[in-house]
Formats: sequence, structure tokens, C-alpha cells
Amino acid sequence: MIFASDNWAGAHPAIAAALSEHAGGYARAYGNSDLDRKVDDRFSEIFEREVSVFFVSTGTAANSLSLVSVNKPGGVAFCHREAHMTEDEAGAPEYFTGGARLCPVDGPLGRIDPANLDTAIARYPAEFVHSGRPMAISVTQATEIGTVYGLDDLDAVADVARRHGLPLHMDGARFANALVALNCSAADMTWRRGIDLLSFGGTKNGCWCAEAVVLFDPGMAREFAFIHKRAAQLFSKSRFVAAQFDAYLANGLWLQTARHSNAMAARLAGHLRRSPRARLAWEPQANEVFAILGADVSASLQREGVVFHPWHAPRGFAEAMAPDEAVFRFVTSFATTQEDVESLGALIA
Amino acid sequence: MIFASDNWAGAHPAIAAALSEHAGGYARAYGNSDLDRKVDDRFSEIFEREVSVFFVSTGTAANSLSLVSVNKPGGVAFCHREAHMTEDEAGAPEYFTGGARLCPVDGPLGRIDPANLDTAIARYPAEFVHSGRPMAISVTQATEIGTVYGLDDLDAVADVARRHGLPLHMDGARFANALVALNCSAADMTWRRGIDLLSFGGTKNGCWCAEAVVLFDPGMAREFAFIHKRAAQLFSKSRFVAAQFDAYLANGLWLQTARHSNAMAARLAGHLRRSPRARLAWEPQANEVFAILGADVSASLQREGVVFHPWHAPRGFAEAMAPDEAVFRFVTSFATTQEDVESLGALIA
Amino acid sequence: MIFASDNWAGAHPAIAAALSEHAGGYARAYGNSDLDRKVDDRFSEIFEREVSVFFVSTGTAANSLSLVSVNKPGGVAFCHREAHMTEDEAGAPEYFTGGARLCPVDGPLGRIDPANLDTAIARYPAEFVHSGRPMAISVTQATEIGTVYGLDDLDAVADVARRHGLPLHMDGARFANALVALNCSAADMTWRRGIDLLSFGGTKNGCWCAEAVVLFDPGMAREFAFIHKRAAQLFSKSRFVAAQFDAYLANGLWLQTARHSNAMAARLAGHLRRSPRARLAWEPQANEVFAILGADVSASLQREGVVFHPWHAPRGFAEAMAPDEAVFRFVTSFATTQEDVESLGALIA
Amino acid sequence: MIFASDNWAGAHPAIAAALSEHAGGYARAYGNSDLDRKVDDRFSEIFEREVSVFFVSTGTAANSLSLVSVNKPGGVAFCHREAHMTEDEAGAPEYFTGGARLCPVDGPLGRIDPANLDTAIARYPAEFVHSGRPMAISVTQATEIGTVYGLDDLDAVADVARRHGLPLHMDGARFANALVALNCSAADMTWRRGIDLLSFGGTKNGCWCAEAVVLFDPGMAREFAFIHKRAAQLFSKSRFVAAQFDAYLANGLWLQTARHSNAMAARLAGHLRRSPRARLAWEPQANEVFAILGADVSASLQREGVVFHPWHAPRGFAEAMAPDEAVFRFVTSFATTQEDVESLGALIA
Repeated sequence: MIFASDNWAGAHPAIAAALSEHAGGYARAYGNSDLDRKVDDRFSEIFEREVSVFFVSTGTAANSLSLVSVNKPGGVAFCHREAHMTEDEAGAPEYFTGGARLCPVDGPLGRIDPANLDTAIARYPAEFVHSGRPMAISVTQATEIGTVYGLDDLDAVADVARRHGLPLHMDGARFANALVALNCSAADMTWRRGIDLLSFGGTKNGCWCAEAVVLFDPGMAREFAFIHKRAAQLFSKSRFVAAQFDAYLANGLWLQTARHSNAMAARLAGHLRRSPRARLAWEPQANEVFAILGADVSASLQREGVVFHPWHAPRGFAEAMAPDEAVFRFVTSFATTQEDVESLGALIA
Repeated sequence: MIFASDNWAGAHPAIAAALSEHAGGYARAYGNSDLDRKVDDRFSEIFEREVSVFFVSTGTAANSLSLVSVNKPGGVAFCHREAHMTEDEAGAPEYFTGGARLCPVDGPLGRIDPANLDTAIARYPAEFVHSGRPMAISVTQATEIGTVYGLDDLDAVADVARRHGLPLHMDGARFANALVALNCSAADMTWRRGIDLLSFGGTKNGCWCAEAVVLFDPGMAREFAFIHKRAAQLFSKSRFVAAQFDAYLANGLWLQTARHSNAMAARLAGHLRRSPRARLAWEPQANEVFAILGADVSASLQREGVVFHPWHAPRGFAEAMAPDEAVFRFVTSFATTQEDVESLGALIA
Repeated sequence: MIFASDNWAGAHPAIAAALSEHAGGYARAYGNSDLDRKVDDRFSEIFEREVSVFFVSTGTAANSLSLVSVNKPGGVAFCHREAHMTEDEAGAPEYFTGGARLCPVDGPLGRIDPANLDTAIARYPAEFVHSGRPMAISVTQATEIGTVYGLDDLDAVADVARRHGLPLHMDGARFANALVALNCSAADMTWRRGIDLLSFGGTKNGCWCAEAVVLFDPGMAREFAFIHKRAAQLFSKSRFVAAQFDAYLANGLWLQTARHSNAMAARLAGHLRRSPRARLAWEPQANEVFAILGADVSASLQREGVVFHPWHAPRGFAEAMAPDEAVFRFVTSFATTQEDVESLGALIA
Repeated sequence: MIFASDNWAGAHPAIAAALSEHAGGYARAYGNSDLDRKVDDRFSEIFEREVSVFFVSTGTAANSLSLVSVNKPGGVAFCHREAHMTEDEAGAPEYFTGGARLCPVDGPLGRIDPANLDTAIARYPAEFVHSGRPMAISVTQATEIGTVYGLDDLDAVADVARRHGLPLHMDGARFANALVALNCSAADMTWRRGIDLLSFGGTKNGCWCAEAVVLFDPGMAREFAFIHKRAAQLFSKSRFVAAQFDAYLANGLWLQTARHSNAMAARLAGHLRRSPRARLAWEPQANEVFAILGADVSASLQREGVVFHPWHAPRGFAEAMAPDEAVFRFVTSFATTQEDVESLGALIA
């Protein structure tokens, strides 16, 4: 019963098959193969406009290089206090930008509060040289705590971005999980809302190593090519990433795996709602479930072989818990079986 | 007849099979799986001492992070004038080190000349603050032009490094090709010669994306872990690289694919030696063959569907060529067939 | 009536005279003159131990290079939320360190609260590669809001630093003002408390451009020399800074100008305490006085030609003010006259 | 008899007097004083167009920040092989740009050869992502070896810059010395030739610490303000630099001191031309004289108290010297007296 992370799952069989299928023969290196082109076109199709796509090795690379592409001397990027880029990337965004700052913004349930965002930006007047200046805003969709920005939530953030003239980035490490939760189109969740740059993640949702930066303004591509290469992110045999995306984006596989993950999470949430021994920390919307467990319950689950991780209680949350309680994260993936969820459900019943 | 680059080949069937085999099930992320451990041990076995291994996405990343690990304010790293790190990495080593300089050193046939190296280092006195100071030396094995440092050549460079107290890095993007050319052990070609840091490449020799930094001083690993993560190079599903290395390093596959590549290059060299229409630029020692072709010959080969690339004539070389002649590179790989080499041989006969 | 900043004052006559005196003749460049040596020795005398001193052009340079000297990949430096390095240096510390992070720590009246510091550091476990890791702590003495760390306050912060094995930096842009407030020796306020690195400011207290990094471990000097030069901070005619420090540190001038500034601030505070139209925001301890003024009072002072600046109300402070009130800063310097203070006092009486 | 460097001289009496004169009273900090404005206007007057001026602490800072202002990912800047920025700035330009590369270009007598420049640039095709790409060209006027680019020399370099679409920077650490050598206007030697950015040096020619970046496109100023502040180069009491420039640029003082320096150099050159014991290495055009001296002559001069430095023989030059000969540099300044030159002349007669 592995609920540790969607990174603990391997590759979906269709992804593994695509890799095998493309193992033979020759193909141009460095992103110039026919398969690379095909995948580029597929991204444009999915987003209903011409986009530029650059494969990278990790979500951290995608986030960092997105910020590099809008970098400014003295620049400050705004993200949620619990965002992956500020909590779990060891300073990579600051490193790749040569010292840009990440300014944390608070907001309930993992989402940036637009009013807080406005206040945070206002502390960095665009022309006051002493404090640095705003350069970008980043939202995480789905958020780090398994919630999802609704389309109106995104509109509200985009509105702040627009008023301040700031580019808007989306960290979509769990893009598909959010997309199927909202049941809208990829275009509706991104550029139609005002998103300029996207970290598009495939790894957590069934690929092995398939992350990309999607630029909604293809005019940025020429500059980004140098940003990408200079950051050691230009794969020589890029077809091995292309092959993954090719299978991932074909026949709706990516939506299907995301729907399965989300469904498994919803099922687990149901168990928690009914449990006398545990409770939901908040309602999950994607493929992460956060539960409040007493020390005895968490220990007993671990003894039974359930693998899961503790999590920081968000601001203002610790107060609602008993002294021996803590927040724990359970992540589902394309590989999570209904049997595992039911077994876990039985353990907390 | 593809002789464009060993990067145009796909994955060796055994590598593809290993990926498929490890596609299912759960494994710890971020380099902590059992398979990661197994591959670490295998590296230590191959190098006959405990080493630390970090997977990275590209050879550029391996070279750049190797330099970061020995970086100094005002640091200057010395490499051959034609080295990949200075010619083909778009400034990545300078970028990741925050501005270290690469100082080109000349030497015949792609190898650093130890006397030139000594002179180049002497221009940066270790205590003279104005000029910057030496921080590292890097050799490329096999070299960018398909030659190989003999063990005594490595000794001579290592001797300079030792006298100046400088760490010695080896860019082993084609490590296996050099190793089988020298027919010695991996330990003999590296730390026994004085190599401190190694960029170990598997991609060009049959993997899809398998590059690693090998630290011969495992005491550097703790610091390198942060260098690695901060550079966006810590793969979440690192088992997909581990699986490649596992198959690559098992049963001598890596040596076998390298021997095949080198043999194909040697066979092509034989054709060139006998050709009335073309000639070898210099004797190949690994899997790259450089030929001097007249404009008519190169054009006719292209018409026949041979894919290969022009190459800068090394310093002092252009003089030996007729005005319409140029240097061209032909690269062989694990995937090169004897039939293709014979067909090419027939075209230049 | 200029209370805008101690940066608005010029140079103390003795400083100006020293510059004139040293204008003629030849002297070795780049910090190697006899006068440079003399000033080095004077610093060692003042601090009662051998120290290494590097002149820099601004306090921002002093702070940034101090952090560079203890920089680590993924490093996080802890400072007060209102510290100059995080509020007013446009990201210079992050830039010079190539992306180190400044983590703000709260604490009442401009001083880091040791318990909060401990908590903040604990969020970055030294071995957990994902979050980054602690690398330094910085205190500002006197603080940005005119208060001073007592010796026991410094001990408490140093104790946290020691427990976490972190170097401790002091931003002493107003070092002399704090020193005379505590009425202790420079050694007692620094290395005897556990300070490792000091930004020593002379500019605000009567010099023109005299800032220095003081290293209490002279063994760091060799490395710092490259950090300093690479940062474009090695003055060719360094004697012009040396001449300022020579006069500044002779005959107690620096303490005398600081005592005067502090006394003028104390006098102004007295007026505010007695004023029916204004009140002290908090008790000043050095040469900055913060007052809470209603909109009518601040406007009338401006009309009368008093120059002063609004200031962010510290956290939790805004609640104590009426809607039309705001916090304003009045800074005194060596050049502030008793007449100006009395005139201002009369205006708020 | 000090001929070590123009950096060994102090301040011209008029500069020292200006500092004293502006020591008292209050002035806005951070470049906003009336005197700052006056100096800005004076620069615009001298250059016969509106320019933007930023004071910096060293020539290294001026050069580095100039490059930052035209920085690109993967960027390569071209300068003469012996240029100060590549030989004597400890990697500062690479550091401040986050890893841009300096590509050395050869050319006789310290001047970039336009054909070599063209060839060097051609090795970095603007769209080929692997090699990096051209971003700027820098000329040094007067050159590091005391020669001067004629207006047609500048035109030839500017022509290459224009064809490649590259910004052109001038390192004018000895700007005035070159200007009076050419006897043209400052506008003629800069933007009318195609110079976009200028490091304008006053320190070597009679100031204490007065260096500036001059932007001929004032539209760059807004961005440069952040580049400048982030680099710790925004002086709080900037009037102390302004006061120096104010006196330096008034009544032609700067041209007068430069003419004196150059005349002293010319006089020394005359002695060398007539000397039986020494000879000119090449004809001086500004305030640096390079002589070829046998070991006995250089030793005897040192014994007589002449202070001067050895110098690298430029490429292709060493061959023309006897085994015991070496090149030595003699630098004159505003402070050099005719008596000293005559005394030196007598010693080599």
C-alpha cells in the first residue's frame, strides 16, 4: 500500500511500450527529430494555439527556466508560501536566475489569495530601486496540497498580474489532475485565463521523465533555446522524451491516468470521511489526500505496511488539532489500485 | 548510412528491455531506490574503490557540475581548445559556476600538451588577485576528434595538475570507447592516473539518457548532493536512469558496444586509407573518423544518402589541405552496421 | 531641518582634512600603501585581536560579500524581516551569492527573536537536500529601527548560531552608534559575543565613503581577496578610503560623532515624549527616532521645511494607530545641530 | 621617480579642493542631489547629446556592468587579448554577467584587428545554440599598451559591430589621454563612431575615485538603475563622486591633466629613442611608455630608485628581443614632474 508519492510509481505500460517502439533506428538529435516535431504539433493542438515546447529533465528545471525567461535585475517572483518552487527546489529558481527572489504569498488551502498578492506586490514598487521589483507570479495547479484553482480563482490572480504588468506562470507538475478536476480544456485552464508560461508535468502521471516548458508566446522560443541549452537541459537523444509525450498525449491517456488517480483519491477521501479514527484535513480535488491522524493511528498504519508521509500543517491549521495529531499526505497515481485503497480504508474503518 | 553522430542512434535493445522490466511496481524516488543503490555499488566495483555517483540529464550537466564542485572565486579551468565544454555547451560551465573561466590549451590531435598547459597555468599565479587563479584541469577521453590519451599522456597531464595542486576532471562522454581502445581497467584510466572527477557518459554508447558524475573522493558527496539538486538535476524517478546503467554495466555490455563502434570506425578508416578519392585526416582511435574530402566527393556522398558533418580544421591543419578540401566527421555507434560501412567504403573506393 | 537620513550629511571636517592631507604624493595602489597597513593595524587594535579588513564602496557590498564568504549551494541566510539586506539592497546579497536565499525572521523592535530564529532554521534541516540548508545568520547593530541588541541579546542569537554551527554576521552600518549606546568595547560587541564577520560602516557617521568588511578569522583573508576583487570592490587608489578611516578611528572621532548623533536623537525623543501632537513609536537607542504622527502634523512639519520620511509600521504595530496616523523616521547625524532639534521640538510642542 | 602606475598618484589639488568644498551641508543621497544633476548635465554637454551617467567605484565595475546591460544567455563578448577586462579583472565581467564569456581577439599594438574580430564572431553563429552567441564588442581607448585607436580604427571596428548587430563598448579608463592624443571631441571619439556604452575613467587622471558608466541611449537608464543598485554600486553619499567629476570636467581640467601626462610620456619616449642602453618597444600615444631593457639596465634603474613594472611581451614580440631583455612599462600621470622624467632620461643616457 504505497501512498508515498506519485513519483514512486514507474511508467504506464503504454509509455514503456512507446519507448521500446522508438528504441531502434536513427533520429536527429537535440530536439530536431520528426518525433519531436510531431509532439510539438500535438501540444499546439491540445492548447488550441501555436505554442513552443522545450523538454526538461525535472519540474524544478521547468520552473526555474520559466523564471529565467522573464528574469530582471532585482526581480521578485511571487508564489504561494507552500509552493514547490520555494519549499522543495533547494534554491534552484534563485540559482538559475542569478539571484531573483521568491516572495511567499499566503492564501487558504494552497491557493494564492489575490488580495494578499496585491499587497505583496505593492511592497515592491516597480520604479523604487532599493527594494527590487516585481517580475513574475506563479500559481501551482493542482496545488501542493491537492486542491485546485477554479477558473475564477485563476481569473482573479491573472487580474492582479495584468494590473501590475507581470507575466503569469503555472507550475503544472500535476496539470492533468487539475484539468480533469475542472473538466475544462487545457486552453481554458491556461492562456485563456492569462497564463503566459507553463511547467507541464508528465512524470508524476505515468511517464518516466517527461517534463516540458510550454511558452504560449512562441516569439519567446528563440531566446529560450539559449536559456535551455545553457542550463544543460537540451537532451541529445530528445526522442526518448518525445516518445513518452507522444504516447502520453495520444488517445487521451494522460486524462485517463489523471482521472484514475483522482478517483482513487476521492475514494480514499470517502473512507476518511466515514472513519471514526481519522479525518480529512480538507477536501481533496486532485490526487492528494491529507488526513489528520492521531499518533496511534499513524503508527498502526505504518505497521501494516502503508507508506505515506507527514506534512507541515499549513498556517493557522495547527490550532485545530489535538496535541498528538498530525497531518499526513496520501498520494494516488495511475498505478494505485482500488484494492490498495480498500485495504487502507479497512485499516482506518 | 547515418554517420552524423552517435547521438542519432536510439537505445540498445538490452537497455530498452531493462527499462520495460523496471517500468512496473513502486520504488523510492530521488535516488533512493534499491536499484539506485545497486548501480552505485556496480560503479564502485568497476572502479575498484568506493565512488559516489550522481545521475544527470546531459554531458553538459556532468561537466558543469563537476566544475561547480571545485569552483573558486576568480577560478579558471583549463581544457583543450577544442573541448566540448568550451566549444559546444553554450557557456553552461561558466553559467553554473557563476562565472568561472575556461582557458583553452592547445595540443596536437585533440590532446592537451602538458608544456602548453604548464605555461597557461603559469599566467594565472595562484596568489595574484588581478588575473584570477587556476581551479581545475579537464581532459576529454576519448577526445573530441576521436583520439585517445594514452596512460602516459594522462600521467603527464596529471603531473602538471599535481604540481599546481589542481583537481583533474575527465570528460568521459565517450569513456567506454577510450577504455576499450586502451584495453585497460577503468581504475587504470582514471583515479590511478590522478583523475579526481569524471563525467561518465552512457548515452552515446547505447543508452537513452544515462550520464553521471563520478566522484573518486566520496567525501565530496555530501556537498555535491546540494550542487546536484540546486541544478535541477535530481530526477524524481531516478530508477529510469538506474535501470539503463544497470543493463549497460552488466555482462560487459558497455565494453561490447564500444568495441563494436570502434571496430566500425577502424574499418571505415581502412577504406579511407585505401581510397583514391579521400584520405584520413588523422588516425582514429575510438569511434570517430575524420576524413579530408574534396567538394565533389562530399557532395556525391550526400547525394547517395550518407549523413555526416563538416568539422573545423584544427589549428595548423588547414594549410595541408587543397582549397576545395574540407574536414568531415563520420561517427560510428553500437548501431552502425558493417553493411553501412561497406556501402560507404564502396562509394569512396 | 534635515532629518531625512544620516546619508544626507557630508563629511566631518576632520575626514575632509585627512583626504586633503593625503591627496599629494605617491602611494602603492590596490590596498598596499603604508596608510592601508596603518589602518589595518588600527582595526586590529580596536578589536583587540588580529583582524582582516577589506574596504568596499557601500554597505550593500559589505553585506553581500560577507555572505559570499560563507556561501553554500542551496544556502539560506537568516536575518530580521526588516533588515537592510532584505529590504533595501535590491537583491544584491542573492545576486552576489549566485542565488542564496534570505529568510526573514520576526522579532520585536527590530531584533531577531532567538526562538523564532531557531524555528526558522529548523525548517531547513542541514542534510535534507530538497529545502536548501542554513548557511549564516545576520544581525543588524544598531537595527533598522534605531534599537540596539544588548550584549545578552547578542549572546542569545550567537547561542543559536553555535548550536546550528552557523557563522554569525553583523551588519554594522551604524556600528559606532550601537557601540556608544552599549558603552562597551568593540571586541565585546563582536567576536567576544560570537560574531564572525562584520560590515563596518563609517559613511553614515561622518565619512564620505568608508565601508569595510572585517573578518575576525584572518585565515579567511586569502579567499576573501578574490571574492573582493571579483566583485569589482578593490579600489585602485585605496588610500582615499584608508585616509578616511585613519582620521575616523583616530582620537576617538568615530565615537564622538556617534555620541553626538545619539544625543541629538535622545533630545528629539524627549520632545516627542512631551508633545501633545505626536508620540514616540518606540524608545530610540541610537540615532534614529520613530514617531507616530497624524496626517495634519506631518503635513505641517513638511510645510515648515522639516525633511523626514514615512516608514513601514512593523508587524502588529498598525493596530495601535489611528486611521490617519502613520510612522515617520527622523535620523540624526554628526551634522545635526541642537538648534535644529530645538526648532523641530518647538514645532511639535 | 615613480613610473609604476597612474594609480599611484593621489588627487589633483583642484579635485581635493572640490571635495573639501562639498564636505559640508546636506544633500540628497543615492544620486539625487543637485550636484549629481549638474554633473549629469555636464556629461551631456561634453558628449553633445543626452546621456545617462552612473557612478561606480572601479573601472572593473564600469566594464562589468556595461556588459551586464547587454547580457544574453550564452553570450560572448569580444575584446582584445590583452584587454584589462580579460587580463586584470579576476573574472568580474564573467561573474557579474552570470557566466558570459570573453573571447580574446588578436591585433597588433593593443588594437583589435577588424578582420580577426570578424573571424572570431563568425565562430559563434547567432542562431546556433551549442556554441553560445555574440553579445558585445569592447575596445579599450587608450589601449592597455599606451596606443590609441584612430578614428578610422574605431570606424572599422564599429563597422564589424554594425554588420553583426552587436553593441559596442569602450573601456575608457584612460579616456582623456586618448582624447587629447586624437585631438577630437568626446562625441567624435564615441557615439559618432558607433560606441553605445562607455566606461569613463577619472581616477587615473587626477581623481580619487571617479568612474562612471555612460549610456549613449538614455532609454537604457531605467534598467541600468537596477543593474547598478543590485551590484552594490549605488553610493549613498554620491555627491563625493559628483564633486570630483564636477571639478574634473570644469575648465578643461581633465584635458589639461591628460595633456600633461601624455607630454611627459612623449618626453620619456624621446629619451628612450636617443638612449644607447634602452629602446622603445613601440611608439607611445598616450601616457604609457614601454621600453625594452636588458637585465643590467633594469636592475640599475631599480637601484637608483626608479619604480616601474615588467610587462608581458605581446604575441610575436618576444622573438625580437635578446635573451636577457624584457619589456617594462613606465606610466606617467598628472603628477609626473619634468624633473623626474629628466632624471630618468639621464640614467638611461
